[in-house]
Amino acid sequence: MVTRKEVAELATVSEATVSRVFNGVGPMKPATKERVLAAAQTLGYHPNAIAQSFARRRSGNLGVVLPYMPKVHLFSTYYFAEILSGIGEQCRKEGYDLLLSLLPTDEELDYTQLYRSQKVDGCVILGARDTPEQRRSLEELKAQGLPFCLVNQRFEGLPLLEVDADHVEGSYLAVRSLLADGYRRIAFMNGSPDYSNSVDRLAGYRQALLEAGIAAQPELLLEGNYSRTSGYKAAAEVWAMRDRIDAIFAANDRMAIGLMQGLRERGWLAGRDFAIIGCDDSDAAKLSDPPLSTIHVPFFEMGKAAARAVLASIGHGEPGSGQQLKLPTQLIVRQSSRRAAGAEHGRE
Amino acid sequence: MVTRKEVAELATVSEATVSRVFNGVGPMKPATKERVLAAAQTLGYHPNAIAQSFARRRSGNLGVVLPYMPKVHLFSTYYFAEILSGIGEQCRKEGYDLLLSLLPTDEELDYTQLYRSQKVDGCVILGARDTPEQRRSLEELKAQGLPFCLVNQRFEGLPLLEVDADHVEGSYLAVRSLLADGYRRIAFMNGSPDYSNSVDRLAGYRQALLEAGIAAQPELLLEGNYSRTSGYKAAAEVWAMRDRIDAIFAANDRMAIGLMQGLRERGWLAGRDFAIIGCDDSDAAKLSDPPLSTIHVPFFEMGKAAARAVLASIGHGEPGSGQQLKLPTQLIVRQSSRRAAGAEHGRE
Repeated sequence: MVTRKEVAELATVSEATVSRVFNGVGPMKPATKERVLAAAQTLGYHPNAIAQSFARRRSGNLGVVLPYMPKVHLFSTYYFAEILSGIGEQCRKEGYDLLLSLLPTDEELDYTQLYRSQKVDGCVILGARDTPEQRRSLEELKAQGLPFCLVNQRFEGLPLLEVDADHVEGSYLAVRSLLADGYRRIAFMNGSPDYSNSVDRLAGYRQALLEAGIAAQPELLLEGNYSRTSGYKAAAEVWAMRDRIDAIFAANDRMAIGLMQGLRERGWLAGRDFAIIGCDDSDAAKLSDPPLSTIHVPFFEMGKAAARAVLASIGHGEPGSGQQLKLPTQLIVRQSSRRAAGAEHGRE
Repeated sequence: MVTRKEVAELATVSEATVSRVFNGVGPMKPATKERVLAAAQTLGYHPNAIAQSFARRRSGNLGVVLPYMPKVHLFSTYYFAEILSGIGEQCRKEGYDLLLSLLPTDEELDYTQLYRSQKVDGCVILGARDTPEQRRSLEELKAQGLPFCLVNQRFEGLPLLEVDADHVEGSYLAVRSLLADGYRRIAFMNGSPDYSNSVDRLAGYRQALLEAGIAAQPELLLEGNYSRTSGYKAAAEVWAMRDRIDAIFAANDRMAIGLMQGLRERGWLAGRDFAIIGCDDSDAAKLSDPPLSTIHVPFFEMGKAAARAVLASIGHGEPGSGQQLKLPTQLIVRQSSRRAAGAEHGRE
């Protein structure tokens, strides 16, 4: 069996270049292309993809569907940037270009259009929410056998190819760590329940409290929209309840940082007057003052895994469906949740 | 030289059919047309007419060409993320999708391929460097009248559509501010001179020193690769020359932050023992310890402007060329370059 590597060596190009030639991807000199094709012919190299790509014309594009968020610099958010970097890395390896498409409103949504217009051979869908319209459009994709993978969103009762992190575990680890440090009055700032990971994080929070014999108190549950601003605004609520709160777990770093900033303005310092743990392990968590304890979520690897899964199902000519890949999370303890020396924490 | 006959044979159609496809003539089954185009692509068949006929047939995609940087999470760098967010915003407005394509090595580079394969109607090119191969490939694009815009890179003597920031001004503002605070021994950590903005920043640095009657000293010029690590490593050089340095201007925030970290490990604190100004005004600059003074560069607006320029030239059916749009920069003073109270700065 002739490998891509042997073709690359004979043609004196990289393996990625061989893939790019066979997928018809990217800006490429004709001379390079011819050298690769000649080497492939000499060696008798016939990837499965070739025959199919002539029969069923491939675009050589992997679609990435992104939500449109007004005023947000989408690619500048750690979450999307890292997932996209992972998808990009895998596409480069397999010789695919990325086609980025912004999700229209639910009313206009029709995922199948991207495939019909031959823009993409498969899709990774980011930022999906469990609304009736999105559910219907995904069911349609599945019914038509078009390859796609969801990242970080599960649709209960609708088995789809999906890559996720173990958010229940992440949330559980954060809250258990706060409990182990003696904190008992732990508020939780979550995102919208339209996102399955918000639902998962709430489950992890409840589980850790339950194990510690503490009843979850509804007034300690705050909701934001994953922006720093929503955390900053919620600081007022936390401040009003400060006698009943000694620690906070926030569903992402941005909200946690907003909370720290808002509370600092009121004289309450993270890591001294209260403990806080975020989620994502973004660059901002490392650089914030104090550095933010957080749950590391392997977004880059999730993007890679999603792209790999979709590209594999394109290669096989049939979409893998109903597989769920769940990557582990990790607690990173920094100064924001270290127990201040000599500080007393209220215990109930 | 590939002939029409060879294309006809591979596609199992007549030569007349090949001509009809490339001239866009007559009623034609989509399947036949696609077979001919696939065969032509495989063989590298490029009649003069192609570029024109493809230009008429729109893909609805704006290409974004990105450099491949091993180990770098490309979309997680502030620079690319912000430019891409700006491009995305403009594309959304004008109903275009984004096709991301990673730049291959210089040897394999041929930008025109993206257009020939009907992947894109126009391109924004990021991370270009002034090498003979890239220059040649851009000249080819220009000669064929294909619409494109460069961001943040100028090719001397080759007038192209380009969007840039005024890096000479930015660098000048930074160094003048250090001089105004009494610093005299100002090191400059620049990036590779293959980038025109590195050349521009050096010019601004020299200009500010010249106006202050200070001779630029070659040993105070350091070179990194715009990574945090390269700044961190350069801290050793700065430390070795610490008697001759009281301030640093770095060509981006990442290198500045690396320098601060490396020097802090040796006991030298930014904003106390020396002043430092970075460039970009990234999130990291706001969050670093101490917060980093920097030059704000409007990357988001640059991305928007570049997309707007390319899409306009697609709309008009003729590429605007040789226009250079230069956006202003701004000095942001934070703690890293504030003169420490009571500190003495050496004046020569």
